[in-house]
Amino acid sequence: MIDFTFQNPTKIHFGRNALDQLGGEVEKYGKRILLVYGGGSIKRTGLYDKVMKILLDLGAHVWELGGVQPNPRLALVYKGIEMCREHDVQLVLAVGGGSAIDTGKAIVNGVCYDGDVWDLFCGKGVIDHVLPLGTILTIPAAGSEMSSSCVITREADLCKVGRNVPFNFPKFSIINPEDSFSLPKYHVACGIVDIMAHMMERYFTQVEHVELMDRMIEGALITVINNAQLTLAEPENYDARAEITWAGSLAHNTLLQTGRIGDWASHKLEHELSAVYDIAHGAGLAIIFPAWMKYVLPRGGEKKLAQFAIRVFGVPESMGTMEEIAREGIRRLEAFYRSLEMPVRLKEIQIDDRDFERMAAHCAALVGGTVGKFVPLNAEDCRKIYYLALE
Amino acid sequence: MIDFTFQNPTKIHFGRNALDQLGGEVEKYGKRILLVYGGGSIKRTGLYDKVMKILLDLGAHVWELGGVQPNPRLALVYKGIEMCREHDVQLVLAVGGGSAIDTGKAIVNGVCYDGDVWDLFCGKGVIDHVLPLGTILTIPAAGSEMSSSCVITREADLCKVGRNVPFNFPKFSIINPEDSFSLPKYHVACGIVDIMAHMMERYFTQVEHVELMDRMIEGALITVINNAQLTLAEPENYDARAEITWAGSLAHNTLLQTGRIGDWASHKLEHELSAVYDIAHGAGLAIIFPAWMKYVLPRGGEKKLAQFAIRVFGVPESMGTMEEIAREGIRRLEAFYRSLEMPVRLKEIQIDDRDFERMAAHCAALVGGTVGKFVPLNAEDCRKIYYLALE
Repeated sequence: MIDFTFQNPTKIHFGRNALDQLGGEVEKYGKRILLVYGGGSIKRTGLYDKVMKILLDLGAHVWELGGVQPNPRLALVYKGIEMCREHDVQLVLAVGGGSAIDTGKAIVNGVCYDGDVWDLFCGKGVIDHVLPLGTILTIPAAGSEMSSSCVITREADLCKVGRNVPFNFPKFSIINPEDSFSLPKYHVACGIVDIMAHMMERYFTQVEHVELMDRMIEGALITVINNAQLTLAEPENYDARAEITWAGSLAHNTLLQTGRIGDWASHKLEHELSAVYDIAHGAGLAIIFPAWMKYVLPRGGEKKLAQFAIRVFGVPESMGTMEEIAREGIRRLEAFYRSLEMPVRLKEIQIDDRDFERMAAHCAALVGGTVGKFVPLNAEDCRKIYYLALE
Repeated sequence: MIDFTFQNPTKIHFGRNALDQLGGEVEKYGKRILLVYGGGSIKRTGLYDKVMKILLDLGAHVWELGGVQPNPRLALVYKGIEMCREHDVQLVLAVGGGSAIDTGKAIVNGVCYDGDVWDLFCGKGVIDHVLPLGTILTIPAAGSEMSSSCVITREADLCKVGRNVPFNFPKFSIINPEDSFSLPKYHVACGIVDIMAHMMERYFTQVEHVELMDRMIEGALITVINNAQLTLAEPENYDARAEITWAGSLAHNTLLQTGRIGDWASHKLEHELSAVYDIAHGAGLAIIFPAWMKYVLPRGGEKKLAQFAIRVFGVPESMGTMEEIAREGIRRLEAFYRSLEMPVRLKEIQIDDRDFERMAAHCAALVGGTVGKFVPLNAEDCRKIYYLALE
């Protein structure tokens, strides 16, 4: 176990009646509110009306920034920053999934920075505070509602970059599993893949003696796997959706990375894909993660991949060599993704190899030559992983 | 899963170099410091000198309140409150285990209350803030370093009462597993029992569909069990001690109780014992918990006890009826406690039945007639559990 500092101050209100807490939370921060959301889904489900009623009953002033897209864009962040400044906003309230919340995070950072908010994403620029951010989650997936991470895409060059700083923790998050009942199956499945990826990125570490977090991650992965089919088959089954949803928040809230060094190569490899092809992050991860596993297996990954196979997918220890056990684990992971009707090869979503070279180079270059900590990968390794993911 | 609110703002600095963070933390809160600690152990180990050097190098003013005893007493809390008021203390820094930290918690509450601090423990009196509290942990056990709980004993009538409020979360806790290397084996074993009890009190719930927390608790329990013998046999094995220590903090930090209702009967039954006989809390729990399990098994506890037996102690599902599986789990828990050289019967620590009636009545009366949520117990049930624990 390596030394660590852990703090996660986000207050979570979780459950069927979680929205009842919104008024009390808003009153702590002020009534000049920027409401950030995506398309029309929160209007269709009635959540928008419920939220607006609570805010207006409080006497709040609400400015609206709708139109957040998946893989959220920098342009809308600029617009939100302007609106906050113009209206002297006191609280940004993001309603939606990771895209709405990440847009909100970028806005609360940018408002408190004199220069271009993109500087902050490039490791330039310093701020000493942010505007308060609250969230109402409608998609269990990104874990942004309880995390310090934030990923934004700059449209000009399709550059997708994350900023992980303690400032990014929302002050509060309201999570009612019912608010994702109406989500299309495909998006639920993508969310499940994303949630598991957040756990697995942390699971695959070369740091030794990390049994506590290993076992807690394994328990969380098994729970997601056990409830995945049920939540897809019965979208209004509260119990199954609640397990997935709370697992989604814990997957990314930094507790599960204490004492270890996460990998994150698969996320970076996928960010290239979704920046270029605008595919769903979860679908990209279902394709990339097994390919990454196959690539790192003979390069120092065997032991941990075998542990994963045995403890998460119940592969019997007696089934063969450590390598065979590990490969069986990867097969079962792919079979599980397929059972969610997720793609597991790029060809299945009509992506060919024309951009591999560029994506691999960009991916490795972004982080100083190598990507990933479990097995550090250079541009050539990245290219080979894209090929393993091809067909 | 039931609705919940979760927030744990304590900042944890964990690891071999955690103490390096003390100066930076202290500077946030102020340099007029009350240092709370127990006997001479932190002086023997050199921790006291290291802490004092850091504080004095910062130019801090330090007042000392030593002499905290196990099952910490109200008298010392009063003294600490007086010292804080007299010297206009800005930060209470508790160095030690749960007793020193709980004393610190009671002090930071009491300073901000005009009346008798004991009122707060009896549900009377209201405060709207507390003094900041920091901790340096030297005993993995109580979990107080990352919890909102605080237990104090009033000497006059041996009344031991807890106060669980968000105010009680320390601002920061510094946790270096090395700081407990010199702890006597008996205390390490008591700590392990206490840590597991904090997990099991939460594990045993009648709330359904709590798979995520069930599995995370199981993972944490298995980790403690797997590292217990090693940390006792090799007190300076950092890796084993680190697993136990971080598990101890997470056992009680309220995450593991999200979405469920914990039991806590065993803790209340044990508090009576340690208040009357001044035994170590962990030793008392090793005696009480199996007795409690035997009592609740035929009263609605079978299913969860069988799950515990199978998943935590690896009892094969094929070994028999659900009841037989559950009983085998209890046997293995007792065998595990014995392997730590913990007592599992009251007779082993020279306690007979003379106080059972009084303790049972007091225990049940304290909480309005019944104690425990998994299977609510009246005074008569409590008495029977003490008898099951006798020999």
